[in-house]
This record gives sequence, structure tokens and C-alpha cells, in this order.
Amino acid sequence: MQLGMIGLGRMGGNIVRRLHVKGHTAVVYDRDTAAVQALVEEGATGSASLEEFVQKLEKPRTAWVMVPSGHITEAVVQDLMQMMEPGDTIIDGGNSFWKDDIRRSRQAAELGIFYLDVGTSGGIWGVDRGYCLMIGGEASEVERLDPIFQALAPGHGTIPRTSGREGGHSRSEEGYIHAGPSGAGHFVKMVHNGIEYGMMQAYAEGFDIMKNAASERLPEELRLDINITEVAEVWRRGSVVTSWLLDLTAAALVEDGTLKNYSGYVEDSGEGRWTIQAAIDEAVPAEVLSSALFARFRSRQEHTFAEKVLSAMRKGFGGHLEPKVPPPDVN
Amino acid sequence: MQLGMIGLGRMGGNIVRRLHVKGHTAVVYDRDTAAVQALVEEGATGSASLEEFVQKLEKPRTAWVMVPSGHITEAVVQDLMQMMEPGDTIIDGGNSFWKDDIRRSRQAAELGIFYLDVGTSGGIWGVDRGYCLMIGGEASEVERLDPIFQALAPGHGTIPRTSGREGGHSRSEEGYIHAGPSGAGHFVKMVHNGIEYGMMQAYAEGFDIMKNAASERLPEELRLDINITEVAEVWRRGSVVTSWLLDLTAAALVEDGTLKNYSGYVEDSGEGRWTIQAAIDEAVPAEVLSSALFARFRSRQEHTFAEKVLSAMRKGFGGHLEPKVPPPDVN
Amino acid sequence: MQLGMIGLGRMGGNIVRRLHVKGHTAVVYDRDTAAVQALVEEGATGSASLEEFVQKLEKPRTAWVMVPSGHITEAVVQDLMQMMEPGDTIIDGGNSFWKDDIRRSRQAAELGIFYLDVGTSGGIWGVDRGYCLMIGGEASEVERLDPIFQALAPGHGTIPRTSGREGGHSRSEEGYIHAGPSGAGHFVKMVHNGIEYGMMQAYAEGFDIMKNAASERLPEELRLDINITEVAEVWRRGSVVTSWLLDLTAAALVEDGTLKNYSGYVEDSGEGRWTIQAAIDEAVPAEVLSSALFARFRSRQEHTFAEKVLSAMRKGFGGHLEPKVPPPDVN
Amino acid sequence: MQLGMIGLGRMGGNIVRRLHVKGHTAVVYDRDTAAVQALVEEGATGSASLEEFVQKLEKPRTAWVMVPSGHITEAVVQDLMQMMEPGDTIIDGGNSFWKDDIRRSRQAAELGIFYLDVGTSGGIWGVDRGYCLMIGGEASEVERLDPIFQALAPGHGTIPRTSGREGGHSRSEEGYIHAGPSGAGHFVKMVHNGIEYGMMQAYAEGFDIMKNAASERLPEELRLDINITEVAEVWRRGSVVTSWLLDLTAAALVEDGTLKNYSGYVEDSGEGRWTIQAAIDEAVPAEVLSSALFARFRSRQEHTFAEKVLSAMRKGFGGHLEPKVPPPDVN
Repeated sequence: MQLGMIGLGRMGGNIVRRLHVKGHTAVVYDRDTAAVQALVEEGATGSASLEEFVQKLEKPRTAWVMVPSGHITEAVVQDLMQMMEPGDTIIDGGNSFWKDDIRRSRQAAELGIFYLDVGTSGGIWGVDRGYCLMIGGEASEVERLDPIFQALAPGHGTIPRTSGREGGHSRSEEGYIHAGPSGAGHFVKMVHNGIEYGMMQAYAEGFDIMKNAASERLPEELRLDINITEVAEVWRRGSVVTSWLLDLTAAALVEDGTLKNYSGYVEDSGEGRWTIQAAIDEAVPAEVLSSALFARFRSRQEHTFAEKVLSAMRKGFGGHLEPKVPPPDVN
Repeated sequence: MQLGMIGLGRMGGNIVRRLHVKGHTAVVYDRDTAAVQALVEEGATGSASLEEFVQKLEKPRTAWVMVPSGHITEAVVQDLMQMMEPGDTIIDGGNSFWKDDIRRSRQAAELGIFYLDVGTSGGIWGVDRGYCLMIGGEASEVERLDPIFQALAPGHGTIPRTSGREGGHSRSEEGYIHAGPSGAGHFVKMVHNGIEYGMMQAYAEGFDIMKNAASERLPEELRLDINITEVAEVWRRGSVVTSWLLDLTAAALVEDGTLKNYSGYVEDSGEGRWTIQAAIDEAVPAEVLSSALFARFRSRQEHTFAEKVLSAMRKGFGGHLEPKVPPPDVN
Repeated sequence: MQLGMIGLGRMGGNIVRRLHVKGHTAVVYDRDTAAVQALVEEGATGSASLEEFVQKLEKPRTAWVMVPSGHITEAVVQDLMQMMEPGDTIIDGGNSFWKDDIRRSRQAAELGIFYLDVGTSGGIWGVDRGYCLMIGGEASEVERLDPIFQALAPGHGTIPRTSGREGGHSRSEEGYIHAGPSGAGHFVKMVHNGIEYGMMQAYAEGFDIMKNAASERLPEELRLDINITEVAEVWRRGSVVTSWLLDLTAAALVEDGTLKNYSGYVEDSGEGRWTIQAAIDEAVPAEVLSSALFARFRSRQEHTFAEKVLSAMRKGFGGHLEPKVPPPDVN
Repeated sequence: MQLGMIGLGRMGGNIVRRLHVKGHTAVVYDRDTAAVQALVEEGATGSASLEEFVQKLEKPRTAWVMVPSGHITEAVVQDLMQMMEPGDTIIDGGNSFWKDDIRRSRQAAELGIFYLDVGTSGGIWGVDRGYCLMIGGEASEVERLDPIFQALAPGHGTIPRTSGREGGHSRSEEGYIHAGPSGAGHFVKMVHNGIEYGMMQAYAEGFDIMKNAASERLPEELRLDINITEVAEVWRRGSVVTSWLLDLTAAALVEDGTLKNYSGYVEDSGEGRWTIQAAIDEAVPAEVLSSALFARFRSRQEHTFAEKVLSAMRKGFGGHLEPKVPPPDVN
């Protein structure tokens, strides 16, 4: 089956590669002609412009947009809607805001164009491991494009079957789902990332507590010097906190148990933020997911203005100025 | 090798069973004679009293205490210290507070008795899957008892090796570690459980947000009816949030996607609490781990007194009494 | 000076009353004719329809809208914009979302109409105590309407002057400010309410901790039976946590120290939610303000779905079902 | 009435000064002889050693200990217990851990010595404004020393009476209470400080959100440049968030609205930590109080180890290293 791919970065390029391996073909486009050329050499059909890209696609066309979310995705999708024909399909495979999907899908529907929002998890590992796909939009189109989604998904592989499941493998067991109408794909992916932040922060705090068990601020008889590299490894085996994120942590710690090459400046993408907004819209308490997000915000500042306000109040009632430089016993 | 086991509940009994399978022998004791009898029928040597238990053990004796943490563990360990001899070893395999281990190990050392604190993860699955063991205490004793620990641990099995690890499998790759001196085993297990709470809460909030995406409080055009059973399954495959806890969630949702048979009353054991205390002692921020703990506290109350204080203040400045019964649109 | 008031509920009616006392006049309108009649008897000019209301106002007209925020405010403001003339002024004195103010002010500006957003704090006490006013919009209009704002504000009164302030009293010292362009008034009021939630929750948790110091779950020798009514009172005098919210709490506790007539079901209005959204948009950590909001969400549910997910996981790895009914020792 | 004071720092010295003004006398001791000399010049009776201090006190002696909490307080109290006689009273006026009070009071009781724990709020302002006193211990001793406590407390002053209170002013209305048995005084003071942290953080986050409303990360049309100095002032008058902490904030902002001389490195004392421990012991959710504490922990580190763990995971699945230097658009 043929798929068009716009955006040949780490994700888009690898999706094309995985499709090639599975016997599918791709028409590709990227503003970076070198990226196009690289995939042409791997068997893709290249194109020098969006117009050429659309022309080279077999009808009904399927164009997967894998460019940075926000303004760029919006522009590409709007351009495609002008160039494509009724019966064609646009797939937004990036990390778009789910309400944008609902809006765009309605706009597309008026033109007779299908619009699928596909949340794609798997990172740099997806090309080999497969991509976990959460798809929103028309059921008929999800059906038509099933060969593509199946090829990209990990398949049931060697992962033990969930107790209670019977019969043939469902799509979810192959690693992709039709999550619901437009917006549902990115909504589920959004929550996935929200959970991801929370899990990461849970591990991060736990390792921080173990690291500081040797802190000189503690009474000497209660200090513990814990080899956290070995802890991460042992938890991979038989513990309750076994996970892929732990596997990655264990690997990073084998490389350097002090993690000294990491700045600790932690970015966040839109999904973590939108997850909290969804929680607020629904009046669902989301303490852990929001704390995980705020920890990232905090990580990117030397000091918050809030902290200066605290210091100012403390001076106000206590009469002392906080030290500019932390005392040496504080790590 | 011979191990003595005191406490034949779900954990203690299964540990003996796993040792049997691996060719080791056990002397067992429990106040519940039926529990003793059951294991005797499976090949263990039974005993009718703690005295008899100690007498039946070969020297140097090794007694694994697997009784409820707190007062009962304390009493059993104290009794054992009176009955055992220099060179013998007491293993506290329960969920004791790590500072109690440090105290007890010193007391034991004065008697020439070894004391190991072993954090044991694996729950009801450990008998087959193996137990993840985090051991604190004298290195020489961990060495002497290596056959026991190796038999209980999961082994490296089919779990892919962590990138960067070379040579023969380390103990951590077999699923057990010598975490450090006395207290270190239970400290690491404590943090493990703290992280477990945080991860669980991250998933729980995420599923809550997906569940409530269909809430009638939302504008109709923005409601999404998401099949969370399928979401849990698909995330098991290729996503970033893959984990054993997710596997368990997926299985529970296959059984009943509404989880209506669960009350939502959530208990907590000491480890989650001690983790926060350790964080506070070390001055380590632990937002996520504490939020996860507090969510459990809250789950066990109809209303907190804090909430009544809020209502009282609101009446104070706004003049209105909060409704006693939530309006129908609030789930 | 003359002010038009639409919406004669607790806030709108009392604002008119305070204006009367200060020698101003009012044209009033409400769909509830009894509310209109009541104020007419107190000296206001009544009107039976929005059209009549507009006609009775002297030019340039000033119409203060004090109706429920959201759809109703939107509708009234839109209607007014159709009926009013260039040079007239619409004041939104409710709790509108500040981005709606920016949008509406632009729409009004195209018609030559002024639009002010006025955040109004003071609750049922404002009629006597005065209202704290945070005003957004054109400086010239804030200037023109200064007599109205000054009359509504508390004035500098007997509150000790802030150290470092010199010369004549600024507007802020009289209890009202021009916070900035359109949206700024409601933005500042929004943050005010966000802080209010946080402060309330801080007190609420503290009183909860004191209340539970006598809990039977604690060892008997560590239980404290604290008279929180007396604590609230003493903190009003010389402590660091002195505040008006504490004054209100002290009064509620004098009435009934158990607060048993309060359900603990706590509502939230939009401002608390929008505050968190603003924090997220700005990437500002807001742990306390979000926790305070989530505590209210949680207070309105018997159990969250999240809690059921936790129970399901616990059953998954531990094999036990949580009790449906909390054990008796848990309050 | 005569009081002995040990520890003549900011708090102890001012307490003596306030007693002098109210017509009481004091015997004073401090290892710093200059501090003793200063107070002698103000009318106190000085002493060169703890022995001399005890000798100079009239029987029954009353010794107020106002030295740094922890080891120093412990040592002084233990020394006093050796030197004093049955019927004498030791007052611990510092910020001791309430469980230490319970222990010490029992020890004192065995010697026939009374022990009161007095939580003292008021900071540098107390000498003029009076101290809010929360007293734990024997009721008879609180009664005997009532003249001292009354002199130190603010008195009912001009603060409006709490609605519902009748008859003569209670002690709480004069600014001091007998909070309960030993430990209760410091317990109440501990919670006071826990609440203080929460309130401070609520304000701090709110001001941070207002400050960043002008952030360049926001779309230009949604940026607001808010004068937070004026906001702090206006909220002092008629708003719901009026408080003494706000008064102090307003004064700090008048001095410099950017607070640039404050580092934002924020210390915490034991009370905030013990408050969370009490909450955990009681199973009371304390989200806001704990978040406020953790924000302080975080403020004292350049980066947490937790953040490095997050970065390491992100590299693990996303393949990119976080920047060491924040991009310029992040403040």
C-alpha cells in the first residue's frame, strides 16, 4: 500500500523505513531536500514540492503529516486541504492538540476529505520496536488504512497475553487502536504523555531520595551509600516497578551513575500541559500529573519569582536576609 | 541449603515453596498450625513452637522472619535473639522500617548474631516469577546465603540485557542485590514502594481523565467516549508507559471496564509514608510521591475536616451554604 | 454621578446601595422585577427592560453588568453593545474570563464604546466594608468614572499605611487600581481568587491536622485534644497567619467547633481553574494553587475513578480486594 | 513578677524588654556576655553562668529557655533540670519538636519540676505588637504564670471581636492560650508555621503568575504588564486575601518591585517538616502544606538529581540531550 509522508525527521523518516521493510511504498516530501534524497535512496519516491507530492500520490491519496505540532502542522494541513480531493485522507501523526483535530476534521469533512489524528508513541526505538498507534477519526478510513497501521504497530510479538483475553488478537493487542472519533487519537496520546511525565517524576524522586541517603546533612549513623545503578537493574527483575522507562534509566546509569552530563534542565511538550487542562475541564483531580509538569517548569529556572517573594516575606517578619549562596552542607 | 521460615502467610509460604522447587529445604513455624501442616505435606520440616523451630535448624542457623511488620516482627526478632547463638543469622524479610533494622542489627551484633534486612518484592506472583530481593547487612553473610537468594530471585531469564552491561551476569541482573549495610535493604524496598505509589497514581489519574472525557459537564461537541480497556492494552505494546503495573491494569479492565466492584477505598502501608519522611529528612522535593500518598489518605474518608473548614470560610465571605448533596451533573 | 446596574443579586444590589449612601444615583435593571422594585424603594430608578434601562441613562452612559459570568454576561454585553452609542461605557463587574474581556473590548472599540473589566472582591461584606476593585481598560475612562470607583472602594480607613509609602494616598491605598489594559482587571481578580483558594486550603489542612491530633489511630501517649476554636482566635492576635479568612474561620468555629453542619462538598468558580491555566501558559510552577483546586474537585466525589484503578492494581499484584467499608478506626 | 531568660537573641532579648515595659523583672543569661550586659543596662539582673542564673532566681523559679531548638535547647533544659528544685518551672519558648516536649516534661515531672512548652509567634515585631503564645503543660502553672503570659501577649487591642463571642475577653482574645498538656503548645505552633508556609507559597505563586503575565513566551496580544506593587497594596483593602503576610509583601514591593536583592534561596525550619510528619502519622492529606515545604527544598538547589534522571530518560527514548543552558526565551 502507498503512503505519502510529509516531514522526514526522526519520526517521519523512520516510519517510512518501517513501511519499506514491511513491503509498503512511500511518496515523501520535506523542505530539506537532503532528507528527501536519503529516503529516495532507500526506495521512496521523492518530491520537490507539496504540489508534486500530492500529484505523485495514487488516489485515494493518503498523506501522513509528521511535522512540528502547532503552526507548522496547521499550515501543512491547510495547504493539503486545498490541494487534495474528495475521498483523500490526511493523517496528522504529530502531537497536535486534540481540539485542533476536531476543528480540522470538520473543515476537511466539508471538502469530502477524511482526517485522521494518530497519536504515535515509540520514539527513536519505533523503527525496530514498532509504534504504538492511537487513531481518531472515521472508522471506515481506519479500516481502509489498516495495512499501514498494522505494519507500523509492534504486533503482539512475545509480550504475554493479558489474562482474560480470548480468540484472535484484537488490534489493541497488535499495538494500535481506533480510539474514537476525531480528536480521540491525540487525546489518548496526550494522556499517555501526561502519565509518562508522572511515572518519570515518580522514578526521578525515588532515585533522588536514594542518592541523598548518603547526604552529609543526615546523622552519620543513618547515612546509606546506595549503588543506584544496581538498584535500577535489580528492579527490572521481579519488582512491581518494572517498566520500559526503568529499563532506560538502568541503561543511563550503567553509562554514568552520577548522570553528571545531564544538566537537569527538562523540557516539556504540549501534551503534559493539555492533560492538566483536560483534567481541569473535567474537574478531575490530577495532583501527580500536574506536579510532574510543574517540576519541569521549575527545572528551567535559576530561581522563580515566587521564591523571591518568599524571601521577602521572611525578611519582613523575621528580619533576616536569606543567603545568596547556599551554605556548603546543602547539596 | 536449609532455611528456617517464621510466618507462613502468602509471602512466607510461597518463599518456602519456591525454595523447595529449587532443591533447598526448610524448617517452618507459624502460630497457625494448619499453615505449618500444609507446608510439611509439601516437604518442609514443621515445628510447634519457636523453641522447637530454633532447635531443628542446622548451625549456623538462618531464620527468615516473614510476619507483619511493626510490633509482631519486633517481638519475633527479639525472641529469636534470645534463643539463637553467635554465628546464627536472622533475616527480616518483611516491610520493616529501615531505622528499626539499624537498631536491631546493632543489638544482634552484640550477641554475635547476624541480622539481614531483605526487602522482598513480587507479591502473589513471586512464587513463579521470582522475588526481587534488596538485601542489607554484612557482606559475608550475604555471600554465605547466596544460594538461597539466588534461588528466590527471578534470574536473568528472558529480559533483554541492559545496554552497556558486559561479562557475566551480576547479582542485580539475577534479581537480587546487596544494597549496603543494615537498613539499606529495607530502605531501597521502601523507595521502591514509594515509586510504586507514584506510578500507580499517574496511571490512575490518566485513566480517570480518559473516563471523564465523556462527562456531561463538557460541551457535547467535545465529549469523547474512550474505550479504556483497549487503551490499556495498546499501551502495553510499543508505548513509553509500558510496565508491569500497566499489564495488571489491562487485565483488570478486561474483566470489567467499569471497575465497579472496586470501592476506591485505598490502603497504604508504611513504606509510602517512610519514603516521604526520608525525603523530608534529606530535604529532597518529593511532590509526586507525597501526592500519591495523600490521594490514598483522602480515598478513605467521606469528607475531610479540611473540606468542612473550606465550606465554613466560603459561607463566611459568600453567605451561602454548600449543598449537602452534590448536584446531579457531578460524578 | 449616575451608574446603570444590570443584575441586582447580592453583589449588584449592594453596589447600588453603597453608591446611594455615597450620594450617587443608579438606574437599575433585573429580569426579576421584585429586585428592581426593592431598589426603587431605596431610591434607584427602575427599568422594565434593557431598552428602557439604556434609554434612562444619561449620556455618556455607564452600564455595570453584574450577572452570572459566562453565557449570561456574554449575552447582556452583546445586547448592550447593540443598544449603546459611541462614548458610552460597559463595565463587566463579574468574574469573567480575562481573554473574553480582551475580545469584547476590541469588539466594543470598533463601535466606539468603552469596555472596562472590573474584578470586584468583598463578598457580602462589601456593602459596608467597601469593595476592592481591580480595573482593566482605557485609562481615560477609569479617570472619568473615578468618583464611582472611589465610592465603592473601602478607602484607606484605619488600616496602617504600608511602610515606605509617602505623600497622598494612591488609588491602591483607597482600595482600587487601574490594573492595566482590557483583561488586566479580571486577570488580577482571577489570581486573587487563585491565591484565596491556596490560603483557604492551607488553613483547612492545618485545622485538619490539629483536629486529628486526637485520632485514635495515634499511640495514646501522643494524642492531643486541641480546642481549635481557641486556636483560631489566638492566631488572630500577633501571629504570622493573621488574616481576614482566619477571622471568618474563628467566627465559624465559635458557632460550632465541629462544623458538623457543613457537608464538606466544596464548589469552585472559574477563577481558580483559569489561574492554573495561566500558570501553565506561562510555565510558572503553581503547586499550591493547583493542589487547592484539585482538593475541591475531589471533595465533590464519593470516589474517583482513579481510586478504583488503584484498588484494581493492588488486587492485581497483592491478590486482595480493598474493603468496601472503611475500618472503624479510620475517620 | 520575675522571669529568668536564657538566650538573649532577637526573641529572648525582646521578650525581656516587653516584660520590663509591663513592669516585670528578669534575670538573664547568655553565653554572649555582651548580650547580658546590654539587658542589664536596660534593668535586668545579669548572670555569668547557668549556676549563677539559677541562684539569682526567686523560688519557685521560672526559667524561660530561648535558644536554638535541637541539641542546644536539649542541653540547656537537661542542665536546668539538674540545677533546679521541685516546684520550679522550665519554659521552652523555642521551636522544639513537640514529642521532645512530651519526653522532657515527663522527665521533669519525675523531679517535681514543671515544664511548659510555649510556641511563640511574632518575630521581630513582637516586642511592640506582642507575642501570640500557645502554651502546653500543667494548667496550674499556666495559671501561676498568667501575669507573664498576659504581659507578653498582644491583648485584645483594636482588633474587632469575633462575631458570636460574648462576655469578658477570653485568654485567646488576649493573644495567648493554654493549648493542652505538654507538647500541645509546640504542636499548635508547629501547625501555625505549616500554615504560614502554605499561605506564603499561595501568595508567592500568585505574584509569580502576575509577574509572568508579561512573559515573551505568551502571544503578544495576551501579554499584561501588571504593577504588582499596586496589586499588593489594593488587596490589603477590602479583598478576601487581606492578611499580615500580605502587608509585609506590600512593604517589600514598595521598596523594590523587582525583589532583585532577594536570592530566592529559601530556608525552612523544623516546624514545616514536622507538620507533614504529623499529617502522615494522622493520615491527613496535606497537599498544600507539603508542596510549600518542597518548594523551599527545591529553591536551595541548582538542579535536583531527580531532574537529571528525567533528562536521562528523555535522552533514552527521545535520543536528544537537554540543553545545558536554557534557551533565551525562558525566564
